[in-house]
Amino acid sequence: MTVDHKPSALAYPSKNAPVPSATQYLGLVADKLAQTEELFRRNLESDVPFIQRSGEYIFAGGGKRIRPAMLLLCARLLGRDSDEEVTYGAVVELIHNATLIHDDIIDHSTLRRGRETVNQRWGNGLTVLLGDWLYTTSMRMAIEHGNIEVIRVLCDGVLRMTEGELLALQRLAKIDLSVDEYLEITQRKTAQLFAAACSIPAVMQPQRKELFEPLSRYGRSLGICFQLVDDLLDFTGRESELGKPVLSDLKEGRLTLPLILLLPRVDADARALIQQVLDDRGFDRVAPEQILELVEAQGTVDEAYALAVEYADQARQALDALPGGDAREALEFAPDFVLDRRS
Amino acid sequence: MTVDHKPSALAYPSKNAPVPSATQYLGLVADKLAQTEELFRRNLESDVPFIQRSGEYIFAGGGKRIRPAMLLLCARLLGRDSDEEVTYGAVVELIHNATLIHDDIIDHSTLRRGRETVNQRWGNGLTVLLGDWLYTTSMRMAIEHGNIEVIRVLCDGVLRMTEGELLALQRLAKIDLSVDEYLEITQRKTAQLFAAACSIPAVMQPQRKELFEPLSRYGRSLGICFQLVDDLLDFTGRESELGKPVLSDLKEGRLTLPLILLLPRVDADARALIQQVLDDRGFDRVAPEQILELVEAQGTVDEAYALAVEYADQARQALDALPGGDAREALEFAPDFVLDRRS
Repeated sequence: MTVDHKPSALAYPSKNAPVPSATQYLGLVADKLAQTEELFRRNLESDVPFIQRSGEYIFAGGGKRIRPAMLLLCARLLGRDSDEEVTYGAVVELIHNATLIHDDIIDHSTLRRGRETVNQRWGNGLTVLLGDWLYTTSMRMAIEHGNIEVIRVLCDGVLRMTEGELLALQRLAKIDLSVDEYLEITQRKTAQLFAAACSIPAVMQPQRKELFEPLSRYGRSLGICFQLVDDLLDFTGRESELGKPVLSDLKEGRLTLPLILLLPRVDADARALIQQVLDDRGFDRVAPEQILELVEAQGTVDEAYALAVEYADQARQALDALPGGDAREALEFAPDFVLDRRS
Repeated sequence: MTVDHKPSALAYPSKNAPVPSATQYLGLVADKLAQTEELFRRNLESDVPFIQRSGEYIFAGGGKRIRPAMLLLCARLLGRDSDEEVTYGAVVELIHNATLIHDDIIDHSTLRRGRETVNQRWGNGLTVLLGDWLYTTSMRMAIEHGNIEVIRVLCDGVLRMTEGELLALQRLAKIDLSVDEYLEITQRKTAQLFAAACSIPAVMQPQRKELFEPLSRYGRSLGICFQLVDDLLDFTGRESELGKPVLSDLKEGRLTLPLILLLPRVDADARALIQQVLDDRGFDRVAPEQILELVEAQGTVDEAYALAVEYADQARQALDALPGGDAREALEFAPDFVLDRRS
């Protein structure tokens, strides 16, 4: 069903360049990442039994820890070597986890990373409060080093992120979502916290303030790239790798780029199939394979991937203004790593 | 049905001392309160249409603004006269409102202050995100004056408050809730934010740090008094005054002091009535009047009120360590005002 000798839309190829392994680009900050992980774990401890129990559950659920990794690499790029960046690494991961558990309430999600979501396990009420506790704990941790500018960057990041989620929720299950709206939502919802993570090291050192803008830009572009790939995995990934069913975005009413690009090009019958999934919030009358065949025929996964590659290039370009060295090489690798991930 | 010449349990008398009017005790900070109100309103503005709309709705819903009032009086007591306390006044009111709208999700509340709750009007998803946005906006505002210590007090207050709500939710609809557990929950859930509001002025001036403890203690005692009276209004108030149905706490599974005191003293039939309301989450098989008659017969509203009076006295005692003047007189009046409120 592939056309024009395009590679299969549903298994876009790795880039030609050799793709770095996680070890290659994270090795530089492996020790700091381990410290961040330990601090993250310790800050989920509480004398309130439910917080302790659900904190252990969240910690055991793991995650890619990409935000702290980027923050630590950017700190190294600027020659930092202190506890401070470890704290902020744990802070951005806490914020990210707070977002996830509130998002899972909103999306009525039952599975994340192959395990029951917190809301599925303990109910919406406790989960709302746990998210509030995590957000506030992250701020409580972040003030420890007395740097108000960092708190400002974090608060602004969380505000833009929350606004992105609000916009996304209001446009949920709307078949006329435009590419611009999708990118605006992605920019706020995902890219802002990446931008905050990458630019915080510049704020930690007032004398390096001129690096705030390029680091923000790097984080923002990488964040959009990350989200584009994340959305593609819903089409190309396998349930066993993702820990959640394929096409779960569409099922939950979230139109992503491959379908947004596809909709204006297909006939009314094809559009009706997608509308039916949105209406039913599930594959009751339409099989996932029918949607995947449409996407494959139009090659829009490839197009979305090409856009992700563009954002990866933008991220690398932002690095031009930054000091050289091993950390910069790792930051140059990071976009390829993001482009290549399979889960 | 009243016994022992006790006054009716369901209409405890005003105290013998003349009760100050709101004007009397708030007049001193009326200008600052108006500024706080304006700042609160302005910080609910947003270029995201939903935030703008729901922000206007929240603002129009009003509220007693007791937390900012106490903060402003304590600031005056310490001789402060600046924009800074106005900011923190708006901050604590924003935090309070964030709590309310998340609580209304958890309690499935449909009415607050006589109007639809935010979750009833716009759904749980948007309301979760709006609460997150309000919490983060409050922190974003609070850092404007560059005082990390204030942020610490605020974060600690919000953490204890959230923990109190988590504990309360886990003990929801449990008929064996003890007086100690009830007071522990009240202390965390309500009193901590009062304590933060009252003690922040001491943190604003490092040279007045010795006043942090007594101001905290004042706020904490006043907060418990406030919550006890709030819980009593569910028995003694009228729907038209409260904007929500009488006995709505019990209906939503929240046992409060009059019933906690009553339960060990009544027979199995009476306990079964209360258990039925908890089981049904409503007055399907039991009439509210049956519960009110039990409470009246045992006089436990009076007992709970007497405990509120004790906490009011404790609050006043905490003022002994503080400077005299008009603000202190107003702070001495405040507990009576709290004890006397009818809605």
